[in-house]
Amino acid sequence: MKPTIDDIKHLYKPKVLPIEWRNDGRLILLDQSKLPFETTYVTLSSPEATADAIHSMKVRGAPAIGITAAYGMVLALFNSSPSSLEESIQALRRAKTVLDAARPTAINLAWATRRMLDKATKHVNEGTAKTPAQLRELLIEEANTIFDEEYEAEIAMGLHGLEKINEGDTVLTQCNAGGLATGTGLGTATAPVKIAHALGIKVSMIAPETRPWLQGARLTVYELIMEGIPTTLITDTAVGLVMYKGMVNSVMVGADRILRDGHVFNKIGTMKEAIIAHEFGIPFYALAPSSTFDMKSKVDEVVIEERDPDEVRKIRGVPITVEGVPVYNPVFDPTPPKYVTGIITEKGIIYPPFSRNIPRVIGE
Amino acid sequence: MKPTIDDIKHLYKPKVLPIEWRNDGRLILLDQSKLPFETTYVTLSSPEATADAIHSMKVRGAPAIGITAAYGMVLALFNSSPSSLEESIQALRRAKTVLDAARPTAINLAWATRRMLDKATKHVNEGTAKTPAQLRELLIEEANTIFDEEYEAEIAMGLHGLEKINEGDTVLTQCNAGGLATGTGLGTATAPVKIAHALGIKVSMIAPETRPWLQGARLTVYELIMEGIPTTLITDTAVGLVMYKGMVNSVMVGADRILRDGHVFNKIGTMKEAIIAHEFGIPFYALAPSSTFDMKSKVDEVVIEERDPDEVRKIRGVPITVEGVPVYNPVFDPTPPKYVTGIITEKGIIYPPFSRNIPRVIGE
Repeated sequence: MKPTIDDIKHLYKPKVLPIEWRNDGRLILLDQSKLPFETTYVTLSSPEATADAIHSMKVRGAPAIGITAAYGMVLALFNSSPSSLEESIQALRRAKTVLDAARPTAINLAWATRRMLDKATKHVNEGTAKTPAQLRELLIEEANTIFDEEYEAEIAMGLHGLEKINEGDTVLTQCNAGGLATGTGLGTATAPVKIAHALGIKVSMIAPETRPWLQGARLTVYELIMEGIPTTLITDTAVGLVMYKGMVNSVMVGADRILRDGHVFNKIGTMKEAIIAHEFGIPFYALAPSSTFDMKSKVDEVVIEERDPDEVRKIRGVPITVEGVPVYNPVFDPTPPKYVTGIITEKGIIYPPFSRNIPRVIGE
Repeated sequence: MKPTIDDIKHLYKPKVLPIEWRNDGRLILLDQSKLPFETTYVTLSSPEATADAIHSMKVRGAPAIGITAAYGMVLALFNSSPSSLEESIQALRRAKTVLDAARPTAINLAWATRRMLDKATKHVNEGTAKTPAQLRELLIEEANTIFDEEYEAEIAMGLHGLEKINEGDTVLTQCNAGGLATGTGLGTATAPVKIAHALGIKVSMIAPETRPWLQGARLTVYELIMEGIPTTLITDTAVGLVMYKGMVNSVMVGADRILRDGHVFNKIGTMKEAIIAHEFGIPFYALAPSSTFDMKSKVDEVVIEERDPDEVRKIRGVPITVEGVPVYNPVFDPTPPKYVTGIITEKGIIYPPFSRNIPRVIGE
């Protein structure tokens, strides 16, 4: 019998908890900016401190930032000790302004703070919250719901992805689309392997280091090893050879944006994995929640962000090349649909032809 | 009219001279182990000092090591001041032992010291050298000949490769198959671009950093910029995107070993470039002298050397991942002939079908 989401909730316990809420008004974050060299936690008790933690990249990854910001809104109601519902709403409005400014381009951040503020207003207007204390409890519930929705979506993706994993498989990934990025400890691209491991299926992963930021070496390796999943680190140059040599059974990566025609935008280096996998007959899956789909843009309309050349010229502050050398440092690449075997969402696996099947599963 | 080797010898002057011989008995090496952070030279005046420079990687790359060792043999005749031809030969024998031990797996090293010793013995036996001083002059000539043969072979490769370069082209490479690796300042994979540049043809290069050793970032970028050739550094993850975006007109790489059937063994990461180039219709050329061909081995018989995991775990001594994480660190990969457009040697360009055309050009 196939396991359910509830089965997995009971069976699987993340070993790395990037975000933990305590009901006495403390938000405890794993400081990801220090990983994997130091495992330290910061305790936050105000929206300002939360905004600062987001700004300084102690927490990163779109879903993780959203969840953190939701709890940051709750902290406004602890921190300011409002004496009326009106003061509560005022405190929430101030908190939203502070939090939204922490990383202005992070869509999930503004989405989460908006959802929290709207919920609070609704409770006040409809009379379901009669005191500041009641409102606070209801908003803790809402933040927990945001967390749970994310977590359950990841479990659903993991269970769909599980169909693509066989005993003894090795899965190649790219970057970190793990539990650190989503904040739940489970992750998207890592969910099938983690759930397989929890179910006693023998499975291992290969993580390319993923220059320039080295998320593979720093984060993916860290969280997989913490979970007890056998993991091998390779350079980005070795991605071809491991597939050529038959060391990889499937590729599973995350996605930052997926177009209606099946183009998958993800961390730079993903496209080459997809092309090589296609060439060697290895299935390539992108895992992402339905909120990742962009049903409007064409591939040429998506601007590929280029970042500071010094991210390439230096590694952890140490120069590796000629000072001032011209650098092209793009963050993402678009994997054409031709190389994508399937897209695994919480709603199921979408196969080609994508232009027909994506709107069918995701809606317009 | 097509330029000749002599034309290029007059026209092109390398801006980086990794190996310089002075007739008063000094061998001056650019210390490549400090590049690109420091441009310093070491002056060697004995076979022992030369062996030490080879062992400590002040000079690297098969042809460069061979040339250095040849001059190292000459230094034996300065250093020991032999008073008879017999003493000269003894000094050369001792020098060969010392030099060969510096990097026991470097085939070019033992080949060059053997050639120098055999030449000396021949001059003594045939009476063409009558005094130690005469022998010394003749051996300086022989070492210069080894250098010149290498240099002329590179110019020949460069002139053949030039046929594949058009005004305004951008050439993607991998690792360092440049003048630093060959010791001449010209190089193999870089020869067509450098010659094009010397002829006033507008051309630029893209160099991937080439983890784990970063030869692209440290060496290729350095020597191309010194030559005034516009060069852009990218991470190994960006190799797919630059080809997808049409930023690359051709790929030119070196080779460590080429099999009779056209398999090209070169630095890890080369295969992925070849596969992606093939996918996007970009020509892929391997450039190597005919001494690189291995007419006997099958692809599965060639052992791919794996190196110390710490080369991946650390960059310039700085850790980038979880301590002790399992690492797969292969040095080379085999590019299947299917993805190779042509192999450019000093004897001409070899096209598929390679199994027929390689023996025809290279001999059995």
